[in-house]
Amino acid sequence: MKHYDRVALIGLGLIASSMAHAIRQGGLAGEIIGHARSAETRATALEIGLVDRVYETAAEAVAGADLVVLCVPVGAMAAIAAEIAPHLAPGATVTDVGSVKQAVVEAVAPHMPENVTFIPGHPLAGTEHSGPRSGFATLFVNRWWLITPLEGNDPAAVARLKGFLAAMGANVDEMEVTRHDLVLSVVSHTPHLIAYTMVGVADHLRRVTHDEVIKYSASGFRDFTRIAASDPTMWRDVFLTNKDATLDILGRFTEELFMLQRAIRMGDGEMLFDYFTKTRAIRRSIIEAGQDTAAPDFGRAPPPAERK
Amino acid sequence: MKHYDRVALIGLGLIASSMAHAIRQGGLAGEIIGHARSAETRATALEIGLVDRVYETAAEAVAGADLVVLCVPVGAMAAIAAEIAPHLAPGATVTDVGSVKQAVVEAVAPHMPENVTFIPGHPLAGTEHSGPRSGFATLFVNRWWLITPLEGNDPAAVARLKGFLAAMGANVDEMEVTRHDLVLSVVSHTPHLIAYTMVGVADHLRRVTHDEVIKYSASGFRDFTRIAASDPTMWRDVFLTNKDATLDILGRFTEELFMLQRAIRMGDGEMLFDYFTKTRAIRRSIIEAGQDTAAPDFGRAPPPAERK
Repeated sequence: MKHYDRVALIGLGLIASSMAHAIRQGGLAGEIIGHARSAETRATALEIGLVDRVYETAAEAVAGADLVVLCVPVGAMAAIAAEIAPHLAPGATVTDVGSVKQAVVEAVAPHMPENVTFIPGHPLAGTEHSGPRSGFATLFVNRWWLITPLEGNDPAAVARLKGFLAAMGANVDEMEVTRHDLVLSVVSHTPHLIAYTMVGVADHLRRVTHDEVIKYSASGFRDFTRIAASDPTMWRDVFLTNKDATLDILGRFTEELFMLQRAIRMGDGEMLFDYFTKTRAIRRSIIEAGQDTAAPDFGRAPPPAERK
Repeated sequence: MKHYDRVALIGLGLIASSMAHAIRQGGLAGEIIGHARSAETRATALEIGLVDRVYETAAEAVAGADLVVLCVPVGAMAAIAAEIAPHLAPGATVTDVGSVKQAVVEAVAPHMPENVTFIPGHPLAGTEHSGPRSGFATLFVNRWWLITPLEGNDPAAVARLKGFLAAMGANVDEMEVTRHDLVLSVVSHTPHLIAYTMVGVADHLRRVTHDEVIKYSASGFRDFTRIAASDPTMWRDVFLTNKDATLDILGRFTEELFMLQRAIRMGDGEMLFDYFTKTRAIRRSIIEAGQDTAAPDFGRAPPPAERK
């Protein structure tokens, strides 16, 4: 079912290319327009049929679109918003897929014309791959897509966007902007920073241990490297733009880690056992909340059959 | 092909039950004897056909066995070794599956009679599940099984054990005891402690955020909770018995984390970008080393078809 006549995807990485596949599969838009800064990405997008047309500038790409989706790193949002503002169609909806929301609101909202509805958004979906070839139609199926509507957003535009996101398979939920940034710092941003750190430590030791660290990367570390392989530009921007929440959660993390480190040093087995038992219960809550399955994960899942 | 006449599995958790399935599937032993401390585990082991016979004491279970595998938490190894020593068959091989090796050698070796070969071992395989029902025959397929032979080990006994482990699908490799404990601290022990810590932090915040942390557990955090759901007794013992290596790696980790935290506070985007680019390359090394696949992982893998 068609939700928009013309969707413009600004930036053609993992999220945008997955959206393109999902939009095509569901017939959710009359046409899909793309923009990417890199000529190579634009050529790939046409070659693999991601978009109907592709433009060298974002300004050209948004012309006549009733939905514009900003899929660029958070640090690039302000410049893109300034560039497209004069070219947006009256009545258009603009949304984004950035992992932080306060910084995006500050970067984009001031540029938006009166007759355009800007509704910030964030799909909680991704893989460790990036680029126009990394997308697939089912990326959003049964994943949360949070939107953080702003004061004065046209309720009809919000409802229409929600219907479109749900049609790609996402579970759409609304959240307040600053609350989004705190919750995401806990469930995503800080875990990513920690994974990056642990992989960095291993890299130092690799020189000591002659690649044994790589060779014997057992379950724990292998999962960390997967997380730590995510797009460097995107994550740099996440940490720089969600600084306060990240530093807050990192502070709590370090306190907690020191407490466990002290228990190890002191040989306090009871404390460690109780702590590890408690975290196991949290895992159960997540399975009950439907965000994962209880099936054992060997870190070597085949791609889903319907992957493009 | 039969490698041993009688294999005694002491402790019947994830590793032992997977071994039992693999031994049966490959016809690798004449019979499989089990021991578990808990009556419920013993009853389950018989009910699901894990073992041919099960005994209330480890001493009874090892009688007449030409291979004895100690599958109990590291902290229980010394008591079990003392108990079984007088009952071991002359010429028997004893091995273990503990995640640390120096502490196991210290706990077990002094008890072993002259006419028995003790060869410490460690399969780098596991899931976040535990107990006699969690095992499956393919757990060890294409996974490393490290053995750390001791001075004076009978080469024929070592070769025979290696053949048996390889027959369960494992890639067998030899390593020196203390080196094993350092490498494993990097690739497994410290990552587990960090995952436990992050999940603990999230638990504090859960009370603040009314379960939003659970509800929106995006990719990063969900992987952490999986790691942090592993068996509490086993992991308590790992940290208490591999204390020095763990504290060393934790110290390096904290230094590194503080450096990244400072870069976030100072807004040093270049440093973050370079760091994240470097860790991405490490991920590639791991894929090239065959310890994982490049397929995107959604943390929701179905169990392998051949899972029992």
